[in-house]
Amino acid sequence: MTYRYAQATGRTKRSEIRELLKWTRKPGIISFGGGLPDSNLFPIRDLAAITDEVLTKKGYLALNYGPTEGEADFLAAIADHMKTYGDPASIEQICVTSSSQQGLDLMTHLFIDPGEPVLMELPSYLGAIQSFQRGGADMRGIPMDDEGIRPDLLEKELKSLAAQNKPPRFIYLIPDFQNPSGINMTLERRQQVLEISRRFAVPLIEDSPYREMSFAGKILPSLWSLSGGRGVIQLKTFSKMLLPGMRMGWITGEPEIIDQAVKMKQSTDLCTSSFSQLILAAYMQKGKMHQMIRDAIALYIPKRDKMLKGLEENMPKAATWSKPQGGMFLWVTLPEGLDTAELFMIAIEHKVAYVIGRPFHCDGSGANTLRLNYSFPSLEQIETGIAFLGRAVSEFIKAKIKP
Amino acid sequence: MTYRYAQATGRTKRSEIRELLKWTRKPGIISFGGGLPDSNLFPIRDLAAITDEVLTKKGYLALNYGPTEGEADFLAAIADHMKTYGDPASIEQICVTSSSQQGLDLMTHLFIDPGEPVLMELPSYLGAIQSFQRGGADMRGIPMDDEGIRPDLLEKELKSLAAQNKPPRFIYLIPDFQNPSGINMTLERRQQVLEISRRFAVPLIEDSPYREMSFAGKILPSLWSLSGGRGVIQLKTFSKMLLPGMRMGWITGEPEIIDQAVKMKQSTDLCTSSFSQLILAAYMQKGKMHQMIRDAIALYIPKRDKMLKGLEENMPKAATWSKPQGGMFLWVTLPEGLDTAELFMIAIEHKVAYVIGRPFHCDGSGANTLRLNYSFPSLEQIETGIAFLGRAVSEFIKAKIKP
Repeated sequence: MTYRYAQATGRTKRSEIRELLKWTRKPGIISFGGGLPDSNLFPIRDLAAITDEVLTKKGYLALNYGPTEGEADFLAAIADHMKTYGDPASIEQICVTSSSQQGLDLMTHLFIDPGEPVLMELPSYLGAIQSFQRGGADMRGIPMDDEGIRPDLLEKELKSLAAQNKPPRFIYLIPDFQNPSGINMTLERRQQVLEISRRFAVPLIEDSPYREMSFAGKILPSLWSLSGGRGVIQLKTFSKMLLPGMRMGWITGEPEIIDQAVKMKQSTDLCTSSFSQLILAAYMQKGKMHQMIRDAIALYIPKRDKMLKGLEENMPKAATWSKPQGGMFLWVTLPEGLDTAELFMIAIEHKVAYVIGRPFHCDGSGANTLRLNYSFPSLEQIETGIAFLGRAVSEFIKAKIKP
Repeated sequence: MTYRYAQATGRTKRSEIRELLKWTRKPGIISFGGGLPDSNLFPIRDLAAITDEVLTKKGYLALNYGPTEGEADFLAAIADHMKTYGDPASIEQICVTSSSQQGLDLMTHLFIDPGEPVLMELPSYLGAIQSFQRGGADMRGIPMDDEGIRPDLLEKELKSLAAQNKPPRFIYLIPDFQNPSGINMTLERRQQVLEISRRFAVPLIEDSPYREMSFAGKILPSLWSLSGGRGVIQLKTFSKMLLPGMRMGWITGEPEIIDQAVKMKQSTDLCTSSFSQLILAAYMQKGKMHQMIRDAIALYIPKRDKMLKGLEENMPKAATWSKPQGGMFLWVTLPEGLDTAELFMIAIEHKVAYVIGRPFHCDGSGANTLRLNYSFPSLEQIETGIAFLGRAVSEFIKAKIKP
């Protein structure tokens, strides 16, 4: 059978990173490639006890279809959680999703038509780029500095698009401990971005998987809270807090947006697992989520420190890297002209793997960058693996940059 | 903020049926509206024990990200299940989905471009119509008779489209105990449809949520098995066998299709819950799924019988209805010219609810039809509710059809 595919199928590529990650399954390779939480934290006994309790008390609800927008208990637990992190929202402003990838999928469905522009940071989250690409968006990357997206360049792009009468459908941002760059957008920058978005009447999509994972104890106001809930859609997931395998997340937005998202979700998966929603709701109601987040932070700080120390000691001078104050990732930049895809096979020979930076750039730039994860590997693996990486990078730069 | 929505958002309507079903929450209403399994069957204690076991033995896998195509244990359990029901498939031919609504969503993504034709039965499944509509498909309904879709009319439509050089992207069919009509496509008809689809080189999508729920002990060969796995994509769900709240299903197709579906699923939700996959895999490995299906059938047969008897005793002569040999639904046809949406409020006054038939028709016909569910209500509710319905219909027909 010769299948006649949709245009979206042609726009959807297999992830280059996924292909490279296959190498990391070779025995003896230390991988900084994934984006996984430390699985030592998984609350296995707590979840078994809570599942038993949920099935006993609410088995009928848990095993049946639920409302598309989410189970009442879970929506209430989410609103409580948001309040704790400075994000007030009412139930009518929340729709449960199957993790933030479905949040991104709903944004693509709601807003993107082929050829229509959307703006995003350079670099940005790979899963977002894949989703917007499927929709055929004309993605425009705005460079960042240490404080976040550059407001002057954002404004310039918006003006240029306004002049062409092609306003972007949205501006997609990851203000908190950005993946992949590790940059935390400053408060002043958040306020500037919000002001600009209002002036040009373009909605902001705030993707915030790492907000809770702040190492310095300080969490800046979100775009959602600064906006008073107007013109901002926030995407959230539990995958980075705790439990990627449960595929749980939510979006927050104006009731109009939630209404549209619920309609759209009906046609994509009808509703998210009531079983998992009620288990997570009970877990949160018992205050266990906050404890779990505190435990994760206590575990990740020494890992980040170990990785920073390892880079200081082992990387050649030509390389620079971010000093993340939260999240799971550290971002390394090599001199312009070098390609970390080329470095990758040398690193594999040195028994270490990472994620290449180019696919995080919607404009195809960033070949000289790479991303390291410190949440998943052990302290010992970080010490050994970064020494391996230092050797691989030194060898690579020596071969490439003739004196 | 004035949001600029995508064209797909404009094509996505809130379900009229969902709005009507709100009435069924009024106290005292007996509803035949939903499509729920009998929740007395939910294996609550089994699932609590199995969850404990899965978390103890495979907690790491269960709570982490899994492969987009599905967990190995679950894929193996699915292949075993399929074999039992006469559908041989290898692991490479299967991709796990978040129930069949995601299977439909992936079909829309893979195949539909705005304005491109797709063919389907008249009536057909509402969730499919919603999904294809979002994609902008030019849906063409082919009438059915008691043996299934009419092959002469299918061929006529295919010829007409071929003459316009607009071959349909696929033919969507529900051969087993169709929702909503309850019709089981005969073997001869299945063979004819397959032959026609091959002759016109158009793929078949076989949606098969009710295949296992056969009351007469006989299950006909699926289009998948008749095709030898070529040119047919089968969509499956566990929602009707047992557990809608776990949102679990799968698609089966040629490896080329599975490869495309996996790529597409990456951008929609990355992967389906490993937690729920491993729980269901263990449930199936213990042989409990087959027992559960047998129990459901034993429970549904007397319910179907009770409903048929009630209709015989209470409905006016002008009404006709299907005699389903499996599945969950019974389909009632009133004389042409009557509108079951108008009847609905009379039925509510009589304390009974159903689902109107028109939204199941992609061409907007079928105003004189309605769907009744017998799997969820109790025998007592069926007896009482069908008597109420008989009175409502008699009153309605009397008022409408002047002698």
